[in-house]
Amino acid sequence: MKAWENNIRKVIPYIPGEQPKKEKMIKLNTNENPYPPAPGVKDVLTSFDTDRLRLYPDPKIEKLTDAIAERYGLNSNQVFVGVGSDDVLAMCFMTFFNSNRPILFPDITYSFYDVWAEEFRIPYKQIPLDRNFTICPEDYAGENGGIVFPNPNAPTGKLLPLEDVERIIAQNPDVIVIVDEAYIDFGGTSALPLIDKYDNVLVVQTFSKSRSMAGMRIGYAMAQPELIKYLNDVKYSFNSYTLNSLTIEMGTAAILDEAYFKKTTQKIIATRERTKEELRALGYRMDDSKSNFLFVTHDTISMEKLFEDLKKKDIYVRHFSKPERIANYLRITIGTDEEMNTLITFLKNYKQS
Amino acid sequence: MKAWENNIRKVIPYIPGEQPKKEKMIKLNTNENPYPPAPGVKDVLTSFDTDRLRLYPDPKIEKLTDAIAERYGLNSNQVFVGVGSDDVLAMCFMTFFNSNRPILFPDITYSFYDVWAEEFRIPYKQIPLDRNFTICPEDYAGENGGIVFPNPNAPTGKLLPLEDVERIIAQNPDVIVIVDEAYIDFGGTSALPLIDKYDNVLVVQTFSKSRSMAGMRIGYAMAQPELIKYLNDVKYSFNSYTLNSLTIEMGTAAILDEAYFKKTTQKIIATRERTKEELRALGYRMDDSKSNFLFVTHDTISMEKLFEDLKKKDIYVRHFSKPERIANYLRITIGTDEEMNTLITFLKNYKQS
Repeated sequence: MKAWENNIRKVIPYIPGEQPKKEKMIKLNTNENPYPPAPGVKDVLTSFDTDRLRLYPDPKIEKLTDAIAERYGLNSNQVFVGVGSDDVLAMCFMTFFNSNRPILFPDITYSFYDVWAEEFRIPYKQIPLDRNFTICPEDYAGENGGIVFPNPNAPTGKLLPLEDVERIIAQNPDVIVIVDEAYIDFGGTSALPLIDKYDNVLVVQTFSKSRSMAGMRIGYAMAQPELIKYLNDVKYSFNSYTLNSLTIEMGTAAILDEAYFKKTTQKIIATRERTKEELRALGYRMDDSKSNFLFVTHDTISMEKLFEDLKKKDIYVRHFSKPERIANYLRITIGTDEEMNTLITFLKNYKQS
Repeated sequence: MKAWENNIRKVIPYIPGEQPKKEKMIKLNTNENPYPPAPGVKDVLTSFDTDRLRLYPDPKIEKLTDAIAERYGLNSNQVFVGVGSDDVLAMCFMTFFNSNRPILFPDITYSFYDVWAEEFRIPYKQIPLDRNFTICPEDYAGENGGIVFPNPNAPTGKLLPLEDVERIIAQNPDVIVIVDEAYIDFGGTSALPLIDKYDNVLVVQTFSKSRSMAGMRIGYAMAQPELIKYLNDVKYSFNSYTLNSLTIEMGTAAILDEAYFKKTTQKIIATRERTKEELRALGYRMDDSKSNFLFVTHDTISMEKLFEDLKKKDIYVRHFSKPERIANYLRITIGTDEEMNTLITFLKNYKQS
């Protein structure tokens, strides 16, 4: 071992999910939106003056922050914008979970929470979902250093009712509670109104799913101004200029088009609901989902084998081998109706030997 | 104080530099390039298919990493790409300066080093420049947790000869040495060849200055594969998808146009050299600069007052009130010849009352 290795922060390397690059694949594995971004996003691209790129972007990201604030009826000092919700959540972990007590999050949940906790040396405790894959508010009590959970949860797609979200926040007034609402726009009820009532809650959302801009990297947190200021202090001390000038303009165009947003999210919800019925008719089991994916199992079919067989047909879905409890499930992103038809047709004829 | 404030990481908020937004200003305050990015960057913008944005970008940033590696005659596993060199440097601090011994950097230098050290709780020691504002290699010896310095240094613009850079690296084999070459393309000699010889050095560069893309946020580090792997492990555990799809394409177009790069950097060097002569003819004093700015003083003129008077004419330069040693200096970015003519004409007629 070299001497300088003593000073190196060693992390268990996170391996990013598979991003196949085939021409004609059906990609239902990373919860991307099947529809393009709002038309205004393209207009920005064609009218943007590249000469502007020689100048630094606005470190305060004012234009986009203002647009998000307006969309949600907030003041601009209640909104923090980052490079995707991963960046926002990482900043939140650094800023708010600077604790010696363990932070709490579900055992089956977004796979990055334990990665950030490890990276920032934050102790953590994973709270098991109940046997229906439900988050039980009573489990999130007692001494802790903070709480984070997605709602709807991933990869289950299950929505926690707003009164249960509120219960978790209310019974933990001494720590920060982060509600990660990456999938909230597909039929869930946001905890956003609770930020008026509680000074210890942040609601995090993203442009990656409901606004079809995973490739652009925009996420945001909403909370009382005091929390947003703490976040900005840490962000400005890390990298003052995060969002580039084009991203700020394109994000603003996306958030302004409410009609397109409603149309595409409704379409995905409709596709999800009828896909659910058709899968159930084929014997697959799943809870209701309020996200843009379904979490599917079957009593006699091996999901891992199905995952591999789908891949051979260039249909990509997601399989988690751990924890054991979800090893016989697949997470299937809702694509276009045509894509879901191809999947269903395949499953109708599918037999495991 | 609220109970949850105990867990909050409190930092001394970094205040981003002034970014005036006037229509007709001469902006010589943040070392931006006066020329637009390479023409190929605009071509990307007009041909890019916005539908791609619904998909996540390549987490490995392969296309741009490969292009940078090829430009510098490296293998792709020797290049790490981030959201501007601030992001790259912050990741380097997190990854390599995880030490209980103080890291070393100059007392007069890039203003972010102490900010990152504070944020990541890294002890540090600022080593005074000598009275000619020179970094003295013999001062960077003895027990330490790592070393970072810009070359050319900022805000002085002074280049440390390659043999002195090598001396610092060679006499510190047990820690990582980061050479921050944000301004190297304006006449300096890069330490890049030293990465073959030493396993403890990283060279960090940026698209913000010599490639006119401050607004796009692209920086990169070059080193032996082992160091790049450590950096990537930390990055993937922080945010897997940092550079967006457009940035990857536009950055690639920029790095491929070597002819434009040479033409514009040479033009800036020529403008710098004749500006230096003209300023000296007016009684201003400055060392030779190998960057895209000049660090200027005068024996009888107050630089702080001049800074304010220039601002009134919508000419923005940079003044640092601390440390005391540089309080009577201005850092003046090299703009177009026309912009420098306006500045010089103003100075020819300038008198302090």
